[in-house]
Amino acid sequence: MPAIDAARLLQDLRDLARIGAYKTGVHRPTYSAEDMTARHWFSTRLTEAGLAAEIDGIGNVIGRSAAPGPKLLLGSHLETQPHAGWLDGALGVIYGLEVARVLGPTLGHAIEVGAWADEEGHFGNFLGSRSFVRGIDAAEIARTVNRHDGGKLADALAGAGLAGRPRARLDPARYRGYLEAHIEQGDELDTSGLRLGVVTSIVGIWQYMIRIEGVQNHAGTTRMAIRRDAGVALVRLAGAIEARFPQVGGPRSVWTTGRILLEPGAPSIVPGGAEMLFQFRDADPARLAAMEQALEALVAGENAGPCTVTLTNLSRSTPKLMDAAFQDALERAAERNAPGMHIRMPSGAGHDAQLFAEALPAAMLFVPSIGGISHHYAENTRDADIVLGCQVLADAAAAILGGI
Amino acid sequence: MPAIDAARLLQDLRDLARIGAYKTGVHRPTYSAEDMTARHWFSTRLTEAGLAAEIDGIGNVIGRSAAPGPKLLLGSHLETQPHAGWLDGALGVIYGLEVARVLGPTLGHAIEVGAWADEEGHFGNFLGSRSFVRGIDAAEIARTVNRHDGGKLADALAGAGLAGRPRARLDPARYRGYLEAHIEQGDELDTSGLRLGVVTSIVGIWQYMIRIEGVQNHAGTTRMAIRRDAGVALVRLAGAIEARFPQVGGPRSVWTTGRILLEPGAPSIVPGGAEMLFQFRDADPARLAAMEQALEALVAGENAGPCTVTLTNLSRSTPKLMDAAFQDALERAAERNAPGMHIRMPSGAGHDAQLFAEALPAAMLFVPSIGGISHHYAENTRDADIVLGCQVLADAAAAILGGI
Repeated sequence: MPAIDAARLLQDLRDLARIGAYKTGVHRPTYSAEDMTARHWFSTRLTEAGLAAEIDGIGNVIGRSAAPGPKLLLGSHLETQPHAGWLDGALGVIYGLEVARVLGPTLGHAIEVGAWADEEGHFGNFLGSRSFVRGIDAAEIARTVNRHDGGKLADALAGAGLAGRPRARLDPARYRGYLEAHIEQGDELDTSGLRLGVVTSIVGIWQYMIRIEGVQNHAGTTRMAIRRDAGVALVRLAGAIEARFPQVGGPRSVWTTGRILLEPGAPSIVPGGAEMLFQFRDADPARLAAMEQALEALVAGENAGPCTVTLTNLSRSTPKLMDAAFQDALERAAERNAPGMHIRMPSGAGHDAQLFAEALPAAMLFVPSIGGISHHYAENTRDADIVLGCQVLADAAAAILGGI
Repeated sequence: MPAIDAARLLQDLRDLARIGAYKTGVHRPTYSAEDMTARHWFSTRLTEAGLAAEIDGIGNVIGRSAAPGPKLLLGSHLETQPHAGWLDGALGVIYGLEVARVLGPTLGHAIEVGAWADEEGHFGNFLGSRSFVRGIDAAEIARTVNRHDGGKLADALAGAGLAGRPRARLDPARYRGYLEAHIEQGDELDTSGLRLGVVTSIVGIWQYMIRIEGVQNHAGTTRMAIRRDAGVALVRLAGAIEARFPQVGGPRSVWTTGRILLEPGAPSIVPGGAEMLFQFRDADPARLAAMEQALEALVAGENAGPCTVTLTNLSRSTPKLMDAAFQDALERAAERNAPGMHIRMPSGAGHDAQLFAEALPAAMLFVPSIGGISHHYAENTRDADIVLGCQVLADAAAAILGGI
């Protein structure tokens, strides 16, 4: 198998990390000046690698090959969460570039590379890969705003010089499939001392708004016996969820209450309303359904109390299975380069690969996150693991294109 | 005993309620145009009643008598909570005016009346009665801001035309004592069918900030077993408080979690920090201390878990006993006017009377709140109860000044 250039790979990652550098990490929100600088920088690198590079109307940077025959698409994303790490997204994009350089001369540029815009969701969910795989329309762009500052997506695209450009679309017949490498973001590889994770599936995320209506009243003059305190009901329900979910959840299930709001939120007022955002994740659709059933039962139980509880589902994403043959190819490449140091595991986070899995065979490779730190400037991965991951990806890509 | 003029009393209350009318209630925040119109309107009514009226530098409206000899001070407040009721504060102020009119001719204007500014705390706690009883300094005024919009108190006073006016101070030797009537705000009188409450004490309020530090992390990639979720710890602690306090609290104790905040408050992030505002109230200092001890024990218990909990006391107000002889005078007047229809009860809410109780014999009389509704425009009291309360206050005032 052709060897990647470890020094060139690490230098590219470090060069990219200087664009929007923040402490030991990067601050490169989607369509910011730093983000666009990174996209143009990456487009130039793709051109240098012999690919025809394009930045499309949603900011996707795509490098295409002129070589005939089946191709493999590799990619990830360039923008970051606010004040986040240097490898989240960047790793998979630079891996794609390096694999294209190495396999291009050998296999006739059968590797194409994409940096999908806004995987991090500053303007929504998987904007770039959705645009490429499913297509998005002008109406969605017109109504979409930045979740941090409320600024319009259309204005951001215009400010980034992307107004009027066409949005590229995936031609599934062009590709054998899609591969994406990413830092794990969790601590499973790091804790176990393993160096590579072959992703089996990307979990489904089911999200809920739980709204409680009680009666707002004076916290001094309203006796405990007659209160209909929405905050007390919320605390009771959230406590019941924490007590019940370890029984109904599987070994890899996770569940999170990310936000709680009491209304009006004053020290001397019995809360008349309360809200919480709750989500759970699992790779098994039956497990997700069981957790929803448990949640509904707990809500029904609390509804027997003094307040009214309304459970609203906000989203139910389907777990996406990674392609079995691609998983085998990644596992064989991992075993060849780091015998016994790899594991199959689901991804608890969402990734662009879940969009591509709708149209193509798709798979993912994880490298360890030191301490499991993610979405923070302290995020990091050992250089040796970065280099190893790229070599494994290159080997698997070559095997896939060689016929697996 | 001289009879009050029921029609005049109700007309005054209705005239006052037109200033800043909102639905069936009133919106008259402290130092707003409507609030200042009400203060000037009330000052004119005091003058018409034969008192020397003054609006001082903090907005207190005070009507003084030229008659020699000991006097009794009656009062309450004119401003309202946002979009609140027509009687909260206004009732006690107009009662004072009516009692002064009725007893003035009989007893030589021995009744003086005050409307204390900002009892409702738009700019802090008991600004007007604290200024009058304890005095406040320029430094406090300079640093005080409106809790709704952050506007400076000094600017609000200037805008209200009060800049540069002296702030009146209480001369305790001038008065036999202080009486204040108020709507109950709770539902105890209304539920029991009683018509008058003789207040025994104003409860102490002990307030706390509970701060929890955990570790912020990714809600998809962070396994449940290694999470240090500050929100989960908060829910567990708040649940433990709700389970424990019914045992440690007395029959009239109340406790309230008014605000909960999870940080950063995003659906897919395990909260790394959490805060809650908690308070409890009781008229018995020993009970307050026992509740604090129970809270400390629960916090210590949660501190044995994965997060760090810090308990910070924000305030501990001392329960204020009402004067025993004044309570007797109010009770005798209640029994004379409504035999068997009165009860002694603590006040769960704070009132200006608690400031006056620091310097003078002080007592309070409650009239029923229909449905216990308070701080809402639907707040109301039956006309017959409004009239009865004023007559009882007049009779008690006459008895006190006649020597009880």
